[in-house]
Amino acid sequence: MRLQQFYKENIYANRGMTLESDINQTNNYYNLHNIALVYKKPTPIRVVQVEYPKNKIKEAYFNEPSTLDYTGIYRGKYLEFDAKETQSKTSFPLSNIHKHQMEHIRKVLSYGGLAYLIVRFATIDRTYLLLGTDLINFTEQYDRKSIPLSYFDSYGYLIEMKYAPRLDYIKIIDRILNTKEVN
Amino acid sequence: MRLQQFYKENIYANRGMTLESDINQTNNYYNLHNIALVYKKPTPIRVVQVEYPKNKIKEAYFNEPSTLDYTGIYRGKYLEFDAKETQSKTSFPLSNIHKHQMEHIRKVLSYGGLAYLIVRFATIDRTYLLLGTDLINFTEQYDRKSIPLSYFDSYGYLIEMKYAPRLDYIKIIDRILNTKEVN
Repeated sequence: MRLQQFYKENIYANRGMTLESDINQTNNYYNLHNIALVYKKPTPIRVVQVEYPKNKIKEAYFNEPSTLDYTGIYRGKYLEFDAKETQSKTSFPLSNIHKHQMEHIRKVLSYGGLAYLIVRFATIDRTYLLLGTDLINFTEQYDRKSIPLSYFDSYGYLIEMKYAPRLDYIKIIDRILNTKEVN
Repeated sequence: MRLQQFYKENIYANRGMTLESDINQTNNYYNLHNIALVYKKPTPIRVVQVEYPKNKIKEAYFNEPSTLDYTGIYRGKYLEFDAKETQSKTSFPLSNIHKHQMEHIRKVLSYGGLAYLIVRFATIDRTYLLLGTDLINFTEQYDRKSIPLSYFDSYGYLIEMKYAPRLDYIKIIDRILNTKEVN
């Protein structure tokens, strides 16, 4: 019983890190194979007090992010996305996305960049890519606090899980860019 | 005499901030007029100790940047650049650019992004845009510790100073992108 508890706790503990580590592994793979350059932006921190000459920060606070976590380049194009994980089996709570981030997604799109979310429904082990346009369309059409799984099935792209790269999201971006060029 | 000293110190003090504030004003202008989206990345900070539940950072250190300060999108394209100021009238010291940043510039270029420097020779009041390719060409051709002003005159682009936008560097990027599309 105690062993079971141990496993349970550890599985849950790992789960929180899974999506981020899958994306990091994927980005490293892309970088090594010269496919795309994608990196995580530093966390915005407001520095209040610094001790000189050691340059040791003695007082600082985390700022709310106003952009998305990952930025990159693929085929010369600007990419920006956030990775979010939910334990819900049925919907993705919109509270995961800050107001400033929504505003930022609109801007990235208006300048011709690609903005999207990578959302993992951890309990059912499915990971989707949802384009910023489809996220915005949802919030404009429905006055709801969460996006149902069925919306991801209709408008999102299911990302295949592999050994390497773990989450091949660039394959989807590639398809989207090709469709845009044809139209 | 004391007043003269005061002015001198203040002029010098302002000078250090000038290029950064000119670029910030320019980026705000671009944003307001829906021309381009360019923002300064957060400074990378290594957090060592956090006090909970206040989320107050009690110990942290600045990390050496491995990317360039500004990222953005223009016409769908990925942009990345750094702004550097020198008091020298004759050359720009390469010690201003970290080894990891040079590596990063190469990568941005290889993925089809635009990487460049905006360099101000403060004493002679001239500001140049130097493309990453020309920066790399220089370091590969010459074993020198600084880039002479004449190299900026031959390979860089002099940026016009105006009231608004203060430093219209996108005009130059625009010209470069148009030339690429024609070729």
